[in-house]
Amino acid sequence: MIVTLLTDYGRDDDFVGVCHGVIRRIHPEIQIVDITHGIRRYAVRQGALVLRNTLPYMPVGVHLGVVDPQVGTERRGVALRTGDGRILVGPDNGLLSLAWERCGGVELAVDVTRSEHRLEPVSSTFHGRDIFAPVAANLAAGAELADAGDPLDPVALATVDVPQPRVEDGVVVAHVLVVDRFGNVSLNVDHDGMAGTGITLGGTIEIDAFGEHYLAKYAQTFADVKPGELIIYEDAYRTLAVAINRGDAAATIGLAPDAEVRLRPR
Amino acid sequence: MIVTLLTDYGRDDDFVGVCHGVIRRIHPEIQIVDITHGIRRYAVRQGALVLRNTLPYMPVGVHLGVVDPQVGTERRGVALRTGDGRILVGPDNGLLSLAWERCGGVELAVDVTRSEHRLEPVSSTFHGRDIFAPVAANLAAGAELADAGDPLDPVALATVDVPQPRVEDGVVVAHVLVVDRFGNVSLNVDHDGMAGTGITLGGTIEIDAFGEHYLAKYAQTFADVKPGELIIYEDAYRTLAVAINRGDAAATIGLAPDAEVRLRPR
Amino acid sequence: MIVTLLTDYGRDDDFVGVCHGVIRRIHPEIQIVDITHGIRRYAVRQGALVLRNTLPYMPVGVHLGVVDPQVGTERRGVALRTGDGRILVGPDNGLLSLAWERCGGVELAVDVTRSEHRLEPVSSTFHGRDIFAPVAANLAAGAELADAGDPLDPVALATVDVPQPRVEDGVVVAHVLVVDRFGNVSLNVDHDGMAGTGITLGGTIEIDAFGEHYLAKYAQTFADVKPGELIIYEDAYRTLAVAINRGDAAATIGLAPDAEVRLRPR
Repeated sequence: MIVTLLTDYGRDDDFVGVCHGVIRRIHPEIQIVDITHGIRRYAVRQGALVLRNTLPYMPVGVHLGVVDPQVGTERRGVALRTGDGRILVGPDNGLLSLAWERCGGVELAVDVTRSEHRLEPVSSTFHGRDIFAPVAANLAAGAELADAGDPLDPVALATVDVPQPRVEDGVVVAHVLVVDRFGNVSLNVDHDGMAGTGITLGGTIEIDAFGEHYLAKYAQTFADVKPGELIIYEDAYRTLAVAINRGDAAATIGLAPDAEVRLRPR
Repeated sequence: MIVTLLTDYGRDDDFVGVCHGVIRRIHPEIQIVDITHGIRRYAVRQGALVLRNTLPYMPVGVHLGVVDPQVGTERRGVALRTGDGRILVGPDNGLLSLAWERCGGVELAVDVTRSEHRLEPVSSTFHGRDIFAPVAANLAAGAELADAGDPLDPVALATVDVPQPRVEDGVVVAHVLVVDRFGNVSLNVDHDGMAGTGITLGGTIEIDAFGEHYLAKYAQTFADVKPGELIIYEDAYRTLAVAINRGDAAATIGLAPDAEVRLRPR
Repeated sequence: MIVTLLTDYGRDDDFVGVCHGVIRRIHPEIQIVDITHGIRRYAVRQGALVLRNTLPYMPVGVHLGVVDPQVGTERRGVALRTGDGRILVGPDNGLLSLAWERCGGVELAVDVTRSEHRLEPVSSTFHGRDIFAPVAANLAAGAELADAGDPLDPVALATVDVPQPRVEDGVVVAHVLVVDRFGNVSLNVDHDGMAGTGITLGGTIEIDAFGEHYLAKYAQTFADVKPGELIIYEDAYRTLAVAINRGDAAATIGLAPDAEVRLRPR
């Protein structure tokens, strides 16, 4: 069985390595895939979006997510099975919610806060090591989900909200969801969302951000424009994105998650 | 068998990947856990502390550590077995010493500088690749420790010193050991060390660093205080630490390893 | 079978994790070695040099390289077998060329742009996920190279040029190839290249970079000079390199890839 990890732990410290060790102590042959540990610190919604986008590319297994600003407080830890047979494990703060929506909803959920799989003593600041990794490893090794914690009604699970785009006077008012290391900026707009708005994005598009105006070409890929020029394109997860060929669109325009971006066909 | 790695190589270059390749060429099925490659460059004591703290969470196996400012000089390379059956491999500069103290002392040690497992020609600057990784992989694959090098008296092994805290006039004079990526600062103080000092840390604590004074709350976890406020807490390795909820205590106070911090109950 | 990865994807985003997931969905038991994901963005020549240097330390397997500024354009994707039995997969932009030169040349090549192993729909910006990782995984799992794409004449494959050093008036005019995280600078000079030039590098060497002059000692390893002093040495890949003991030579001298460096024995 496979365990995937997605966290905001970064790679500079030993957090990730210790979780790997805990998993392999429980079962040495479990395969581990590190989806990413580069979620911005405490960015629950970014983590939820990345988990949703990447899970379809992962083998069906146990999927651990830890972005956990409320670690050590009363917030629950959860483990749940989705309609398509994946098991998700993590804090009950919405981090897992977009993934389970995409994966067929929640079939069964348990509260793992006092799971028998925990490592004692449980620290107040590192539940990835003491609760979530051992729960995930035991489930991957064959333990029953129903035995991993206390029964929990799925309707009680926390969810995250994603801002929705809107159309005003022929302008698409969108928001930045995620910025990658290349400065490529993905927006909360996709092709299905554009259908029926009366707006067709193509040719040249004017981007209005913070009152500054930029012209971008609607294109397939970076090299469709000259180095330094802006493109708007459907990114690899099929959402609209802004990039600069061989440049950094986020830094150039000053875009960070949640920033509002207005798009107008020219 | 498992091999764990802890180095100051970072992840940007190919040092770590090449060590993985060398290990898998010797035995493709060896499991590898990267504890961390983010030890500060040449920070032997930090490496020793992190190795000591994290080994209990690792399966018993071969544990490779490389933080090696004297690479290519006369300093020895060593491999040794601890009282609890782990094998440690690395330069003989103290990096391994806190780990073997915690793991039952040294039962058997060999000098691997001219080990038969070396890759020839041995470079002068990358013994991780040419000596330590191949020695570790061969030991993990079943080679005898006694055959991996020349006999070595364990009392000759280098050790590192960790600064000890002291109490003066009702103040705990502590030192910074490690700073993590979140800016959380672990100190050379633990609960056992506080016993018998006549000082009880709780409630509000005044932190004096470089002559500046800060107030911190003694708490369990970050979210026990408001964002931006300081806490002192027992961290996940059970040592006293300083943090700011959703902030960076090290940057705010200006703390780096070895800095002196004075703690006074208020 | 083993798959190795070398990319410019970095570790902060989910690019690498998604490629791992894609590979394990195709065959869960494939071993993966991450050579590095820290190639500078779009630095095809750096990627080619690092792949050439590191492959001899990797088990024979399928070796995936992705540094791909032309992703989504007409540039081909390729898979090929080298004379020594390795399989290389990646964009046809020269990234693989130094590796195949070192590994016995190209025995068989196919154009994988429309490979049957692709994941549909193929995005325009993430061929690592949609073409190269699935092709590599299928080949590692036993698929025939000849069936992985359309026949391709090896002489049509793109190559990269590496600048050559020259000797002028007793001075070696060299260029920077790669800078590592420690600021160590490798040059396009090796011992074989120095033979017959009439210049012997040893003792003290004057480095002229951008009109500034520095003195370096020819030495074996960093600790052969005092902290802060410059050395010139044969690095772990047997090319000449410049470093500062416990310092950062690239930052101190201002060296980046392609910079010209003039070396004169004193």
